[in-house]
Amino acid sequence: MGVSLGELAVRFGCELRGDPEAQVDHVDTLAHADSRSLAFVANPRYRQQLASTKAGAVVLDEASAADCATAVLVCLNPHATYARIAAVLHPFPAAPPGVHPTAVIAAGSRIDPSAHVGALSVIGEGVVIGARTFVGPQCLIEDHTTLAEDVRLTARVTICRNVEIGARTIIQPGAVIGGDGFGFAQEGGRWVKVPQTGTVRIGPDVEVGANTTIDRGALEDTVIEEGVKLDNLIMIAHNVRVGAHSALAACVGISGSTTIGRRCMIGGQVGIGGHLAIGDDVIITGCTMVSHSIARPGVYSGGIPLEEAHVWRRLVARFKRLDSLATRLKALERHAPGHPDQEEDDD
Amino acid sequence: MGVSLGELAVRFGCELRGDPEAQVDHVDTLAHADSRSLAFVANPRYRQQLASTKAGAVVLDEASAADCATAVLVCLNPHATYARIAAVLHPFPAAPPGVHPTAVIAAGSRIDPSAHVGALSVIGEGVVIGARTFVGPQCLIEDHTTLAEDVRLTARVTICRNVEIGARTIIQPGAVIGGDGFGFAQEGGRWVKVPQTGTVRIGPDVEVGANTTIDRGALEDTVIEEGVKLDNLIMIAHNVRVGAHSALAACVGISGSTTIGRRCMIGGQVGIGGHLAIGDDVIITGCTMVSHSIARPGVYSGGIPLEEAHVWRRLVARFKRLDSLATRLKALERHAPGHPDQEEDDD
Amino acid sequence: MGVSLGELAVRFGCELRGDPEAQVDHVDTLAHADSRSLAFVANPRYRQQLASTKAGAVVLDEASAADCATAVLVCLNPHATYARIAAVLHPFPAAPPGVHPTAVIAAGSRIDPSAHVGALSVIGEGVVIGARTFVGPQCLIEDHTTLAEDVRLTARVTICRNVEIGARTIIQPGAVIGGDGFGFAQEGGRWVKVPQTGTVRIGPDVEVGANTTIDRGALEDTVIEEGVKLDNLIMIAHNVRVGAHSALAACVGISGSTTIGRRCMIGGQVGIGGHLAIGDDVIITGCTMVSHSIARPGVYSGGIPLEEAHVWRRLVARFKRLDSLATRLKALERHAPGHPDQEEDDD
Repeated sequence: MGVSLGELAVRFGCELRGDPEAQVDHVDTLAHADSRSLAFVANPRYRQQLASTKAGAVVLDEASAADCATAVLVCLNPHATYARIAAVLHPFPAAPPGVHPTAVIAAGSRIDPSAHVGALSVIGEGVVIGARTFVGPQCLIEDHTTLAEDVRLTARVTICRNVEIGARTIIQPGAVIGGDGFGFAQEGGRWVKVPQTGTVRIGPDVEVGANTTIDRGALEDTVIEEGVKLDNLIMIAHNVRVGAHSALAACVGISGSTTIGRRCMIGGQVGIGGHLAIGDDVIITGCTMVSHSIARPGVYSGGIPLEEAHVWRRLVARFKRLDSLATRLKALERHAPGHPDQEEDDD
Repeated sequence: MGVSLGELAVRFGCELRGDPEAQVDHVDTLAHADSRSLAFVANPRYRQQLASTKAGAVVLDEASAADCATAVLVCLNPHATYARIAAVLHPFPAAPPGVHPTAVIAAGSRIDPSAHVGALSVIGEGVVIGARTFVGPQCLIEDHTTLAEDVRLTARVTICRNVEIGARTIIQPGAVIGGDGFGFAQEGGRWVKVPQTGTVRIGPDVEVGANTTIDRGALEDTVIEEGVKLDNLIMIAHNVRVGAHSALAACVGISGSTTIGRRCMIGGQVGIGGHLAIGDDVIITGCTMVSHSIARPGVYSGGIPLEEAHVWRRLVARFKRLDSLATRLKALERHAPGHPDQEEDDD
Repeated sequence: MGVSLGELAVRFGCELRGDPEAQVDHVDTLAHADSRSLAFVANPRYRQQLASTKAGAVVLDEASAADCATAVLVCLNPHATYARIAAVLHPFPAAPPGVHPTAVIAAGSRIDPSAHVGALSVIGEGVVIGARTFVGPQCLIEDHTTLAEDVRLTARVTICRNVEIGARTIIQPGAVIGGDGFGFAQEGGRWVKVPQTGTVRIGPDVEVGANTTIDRGALEDTVIEEGVKLDNLIMIAHNVRVGAHSALAACVGISGSTTIGRRCMIGGQVGIGGHLAIGDDVIITGCTMVSHSIARPGVYSGGIPLEEAHVWRRLVARFKRLDSLATRLKALERHAPGHPDQEEDDD
């Protein structure tokens, strides 16, 4: 299904330099593209490939346009424009409206006639499924959960009871939304389970990655605001709130009752403690431990890059003796000629 | 379904100060509670809300009782007492005894008539399911696995062959119990799979979080003792033993053949090496790497809190030059007037 | 089903010292073995148990043979030989060829008559399933995916569209192969989803652990080469390539477009940044953050072992003042008698 460059230019607000009748029907890299491919350049380091690309057209910005050997679609934000065009050329596989005969549907659910429910999915009592929503095969939607319109549960998604999912939200396979939070009271060296009576509310335009888990709240709800993007294998504990348009990379863990602000970017494997408040526009690089709240926007880090093992062992040994190092330095300072104790190192 | 405060006081051993006929029917926070709500205070920092709460009753200890504007249920351990009352007000959703017609049950399984097996679950040969046990929808229980009484597999739990699950144990969706351990022999730069012939034994009163994995033993069994609580996305490798009443937060990884003692508390994202022995009553704070055994009870840490990126980069640069720093310090000490080498830094 | 020691010696190229007619029918540890057990010694620290073992036979090398009280099968690589014999004594549970009547099979799939498809599995359009391949219960194989011969999807494996799985590859429950990569374009503080048009190609003889996720490529494919072993809860992001015969322990995260070489060994919870190149034969110890490429073979580390919390807090405090420490040291050096600034610490 080809689309002409002229149509793409009009629809996505690009300036076309090239033949408006030429068609593209798929996306590809600059290096592999052929005359039916659309490619893009968002990162200057790929600009050098523009001279030799065989792409039917390239989405790029004005600064790169002159370097390109083929037709170009010039725009201000080539990555976003490319993403939109790619969604036209590569739509989600079509799914017929209706419920697959092997799905198990409880009484009292309301499934919009334009929605799709796939093979062997289970829909609980009182579930509401909105217009054009896609529930892939082997999904489980427990009682009284609501999916808004155009939601996409790709396949084998588990959504526990009473959860709310906003419009256009996409959830990848294996994700578990609304499992019990990790709440226990201690009593005589044992643990007593605290019923988790809250739920999970997920806003519109969210994406949740494969095998990510979002626990239901203990009393109040766990909330994922609109536009949040969660990668795979992320843990969102009970009563967490993630602010709108924040993006969390894979393997991040957020402990209970912590609040993440809007437009934050959290790198992979970051661990965030409980009952903290991370403000808006905070960027945390990968593998960082966050043990206190962060009020100010900015970039924060906490990971130490690796070394060859024999070098690293020596550094660790030095680190473990930092206290002695500091004490010895202080002793030297005390005896230094004409060198008063100008810095106090009091701890 | 309301319960009178008088009944709660008798059943849970509280001293009631208030109207014994008044009823509550759900739990809530102090701030959101209404006259039908039961709330609690276990943490002193919430005591200030007691004066203004609209709760029907509050579970708290003697020290907090005087501050409360409403009826109180006074007890020694408000968190545990609250947990027990909440379980009465918010029981698990009822499930009828019997096997859902869409479940697939192999020959030779023994399912107690009071047990529930949900839609599209698969039960293998020789499986034993105890009284009142709940097997939610889309669960998989492979051959010769035994579930004791009152077990709760909430939904979509995978339990592989020959596994034993103790009474009252709760397993959240997506958990995989008894997948093959990661065992391979090296041979000429390739890996030969070592059959994992052990299994997993889980004691009573355990909880296993969503998408957590517990691998079967290589030869002997992987063992989770009674009362252990495992959060989401935890990895328990083959031949690990976790001692009774220990609690592990999300994203913890425990490598093969390691033993964790009783009543340990392990913070989120802690990584524990293989073939180690962690004793009883050990607390390990989040994001810590454990590379040696721990014999003594106590609190152990290994994570470094984050800094703004530009500060952190400087610290890392300093860290990477610690060896030179120590050498320079030693040189200074050697030349210090009247300052002998009193500390040997031999490495 | 016993096998005689004589047959094992011939089949696996061992020198037997003992009765060739004696039979073993299962594997066990040296300590628990009985006269029908096969045990092995690969690690010298278990050699001391050889004098007292009751095993029917022990697989070991020449150096250990003299210590053993029972029959021995002497070979060069006891661990690998043991693994092969154990696979004979403990084969995977037999599965009849054919498709379970509850499986949902789309039109146009080609399933080899010798293959097994388990209960409640879903097979999409155009799927190809090779000879003797085992698709366990509750698996999902989306459209146009190809499984070669002798593949083993143990149970509840999700494989998205267009994926290729090589011969003899084993995938544990809960794994998700081919979910969308985490690709978004930024536009005015919001994220626009970038369609992930690549797929995943997994070579022969790979193993993928429980709940591990391997994302499909953005444009090109994510590739796992032959013989790679992935443990549980690993995240492989889009466009990653893992080289042949590399082994990754649990909870490792690899960010997008990174290449891992051949025969690498990556410890648990290692985090590897995006767009990096790790060469062949690189070993990275557990809990290490990898933020730059590694060209040379060798062992690399980045984790700091834990301390008791009060000691650790002091070390962290010292670490946070490293900058001041270095500055003070430099000041002392400047004033040291006859001690020129021989080391420049310029940053």
